[in-house]
Amino acid sequence: MSAKQARSRTRRPPNGQALRFGPALMARLDQLAAITEIPGQLTRRYLSPAHMRSMRKVEAWMKQAGMTTRTDPLMSLFGRWEGERPGVPAIAIGSHLDTVVDAGRYDGGLGVLAAIAAVAELSRTGERLEHAIEVAAFGEEEGSRFPTHILTSSAVAGAVKPALLDAKDAAGITVREALAAAGGDADAYRACARKKREIAAYVELHIEQGPVLEAKGLPLGAVTAINGSVRSTVTVTGFAGHAGTVPMGARRDALTGASEMILAIEELAASQADLVATVGRARVLPGAQNVIPGRVEFTIDMRSPSDSVRQKAHATLLASLREIAHRRGVGIDIDTFQQNPAVALDAGVIEAVAEAIAACGQAPLRLPSGAGHDAGVMAKLCPSGMIFLRCKDGISHNPAESITVEDADLGVRALLEAVRRLDRRLPAGVRPLASTHRA
Amino acid sequence: MSAKQARSRTRRPPNGQALRFGPALMARLDQLAAITEIPGQLTRRYLSPAHMRSMRKVEAWMKQAGMTTRTDPLMSLFGRWEGERPGVPAIAIGSHLDTVVDAGRYDGGLGVLAAIAAVAELSRTGERLEHAIEVAAFGEEEGSRFPTHILTSSAVAGAVKPALLDAKDAAGITVREALAAAGGDADAYRACARKKREIAAYVELHIEQGPVLEAKGLPLGAVTAINGSVRSTVTVTGFAGHAGTVPMGARRDALTGASEMILAIEELAASQADLVATVGRARVLPGAQNVIPGRVEFTIDMRSPSDSVRQKAHATLLASLREIAHRRGVGIDIDTFQQNPAVALDAGVIEAVAEAIAACGQAPLRLPSGAGHDAGVMAKLCPSGMIFLRCKDGISHNPAESITVEDADLGVRALLEAVRRLDRRLPAGVRPLASTHRA
Repeated sequence: MSAKQARSRTRRPPNGQALRFGPALMARLDQLAAITEIPGQLTRRYLSPAHMRSMRKVEAWMKQAGMTTRTDPLMSLFGRWEGERPGVPAIAIGSHLDTVVDAGRYDGGLGVLAAIAAVAELSRTGERLEHAIEVAAFGEEEGSRFPTHILTSSAVAGAVKPALLDAKDAAGITVREALAAAGGDADAYRACARKKREIAAYVELHIEQGPVLEAKGLPLGAVTAINGSVRSTVTVTGFAGHAGTVPMGARRDALTGASEMILAIEELAASQADLVATVGRARVLPGAQNVIPGRVEFTIDMRSPSDSVRQKAHATLLASLREIAHRRGVGIDIDTFQQNPAVALDAGVIEAVAEAIAACGQAPLRLPSGAGHDAGVMAKLCPSGMIFLRCKDGISHNPAESITVEDADLGVRALLEAVRRLDRRLPAGVRPLASTHRA
Repeated sequence: MSAKQARSRTRRPPNGQALRFGPALMARLDQLAAITEIPGQLTRRYLSPAHMRSMRKVEAWMKQAGMTTRTDPLMSLFGRWEGERPGVPAIAIGSHLDTVVDAGRYDGGLGVLAAIAAVAELSRTGERLEHAIEVAAFGEEEGSRFPTHILTSSAVAGAVKPALLDAKDAAGITVREALAAAGGDADAYRACARKKREIAAYVELHIEQGPVLEAKGLPLGAVTAINGSVRSTVTVTGFAGHAGTVPMGARRDALTGASEMILAIEELAASQADLVATVGRARVLPGAQNVIPGRVEFTIDMRSPSDSVRQKAHATLLASLREIAHRRGVGIDIDTFQQNPAVALDAGVIEAVAEAIAACGQAPLRLPSGAGHDAGVMAKLCPSGMIFLRCKDGISHNPAESITVEDADLGVRALLEAVRRLDRRLPAGVRPLASTHRA
């Protein structure tokens, strides 16, 4: 053990306990972040070689913690720590291994590696609960490669739309083809679906990705709901032409049209408190400096805690984009490929998470999530909840994403506490304690 | 000969002559258009394998017409039809072989293949002029691969900026590296420069790429000047973040900032008669649907027949973009990498072209060019001029680019007539008849 490691091990969190989990967890998060498609930045998209390498690394850590492992046909990885009796229902804990392009190192990875750390603690003392524990490392949550989102946990929840398996990445490769190349099997997606009697609950530890916990000086929060979202792809069709010879008045420029639309999206979202909207991807064709753009494709991601606010704003927006296209004489095609209603998380799991945070000596703030998460679709299968962990300046989806070792330590403790409480409150072998509602 | 071919050969142009050149020229233009990087569309960028294949095809046609051929270190291809005495100065005729992405089939290719057809006619009858004729097939005119423009003819005119040889394409490959791979040699760029005594004049046949000739019902025009242009790359730097969690008021979105700038560019150009401006290329990073864009790079191409109008508008524009960036709290970096002043073409060559058009039975309209051309830089080396040929609806840089076989036939006749007139007016071995002025 180096002097630095020795110092870490003896550091003490605010509540006076030694940092049992934090330093090792932070070191593993650094190792995981080194597994990337693009050297010098963290980019690990679904089914990329880097994603496959990260699965092998995480599987090894699961085995090291005494778990048996299994990969489903859509490449979700599971590690199981058996309960007192074999074959009992499991409490699932985990998150996702894929990342956005040029990502931070905590979004997703924190939840998977903290779950392994929690099981490793049981394994160290030989402790078995009434339930099994299954650590889930989902494959596709971010939508950063394919026009999908939360694909693999949707399959686990039995809620995947099969058409998404034919969605293509920027290189024209379908999910189906990428799965076949990676050793998965799109045709077997139904085999991903778990039975309700197999999974008693799901709890996910995740960075907040927003500024609320930091502003209140709290390390952890109990998530109450996941905001709803709608995603569309907009294609604007103008007429390509020579940049030097077509008078301004005779142009049908797809990019100036798209630019006016992007500003309209920004203005609408800024006009309402409970709404955000983002154009994150845009492609300009043919894309030469001396050619008037003939075609622009861009995405819209709009979210709100209120389904009615979101639905009304989206309808207003589409009408506004069509008006802009009509006035400018350009074509417009809008494909709304995904609608995720707001999801209220399970009251019993929220309660167990809040008690676990309190047991760690922290005030249990209850707050909604602005981001979508695997927990939002797992809620279709079983009572689900989330623990949020504060991140610096609320920054996420950015290399500047940052958490402290003290908060990471508390995250593992709270996760383990929440699992123990759920284990006691959900007698193994009987029905879950509450059904999940949709807001 | 098929029945269809036989019909073409017997069709007669408006002035009653048989279509001697048109059908064969149109057939070769179709063959050339089939040489592409991307099946199903015409894309033939500088130094691409398709560009190399097009050079080999054109070289074979040059040899078939009795020319000796030569390729210079930057991959301009020349075919020479010797004069009455060997080693006399040449009248150069031609255009470029590279295209924009998803191009039409006449921009560039017409001028090269019409020049070969003109020489083939001399070759058929064994006729030698006092001057040699050199058919030029330049390599880089469009700027569709590298952030360059008219690179290879600039080298021939001895006016290339060596820094451009290190310019990179979207894949990070430099002109230098691409040249080495294609068998060229960037370090030998000085050897491309021709001596003033070697080239007596340059005449380029090119589609108008604008609506003027068609509106006046004329097949051909004598070009008087080439509009000036300025090209800049703008980089907008915001802060990437999660599309679901960052409130609208806390965002520094590079794409909404760029969108406001693109609309400002459009508005400024539309406010003046003698000005056009285009954003043809834009790249959004990191480019994921659920990530607020942290960086946008886009190009500006601005043109005017008046250097003072262009310079004043460009300065106004840059100040306006900086104001937008400042107000939105995003960074901006503007790299103006190219300024091409307006070029007045040579009075003697314009006169010879106008007489040639009249000799073909057509009214010789004189008009400026909105687009840049190799003739604009060849004017630095020798008296230069252009013949414009009408194109359907003024459309260019678009697969819908279209010309008629009758106009193509007239184009070859007018080019050959212009060469004969220049041959008589520029005694071989003496100084060119007029110097070139810059507007």
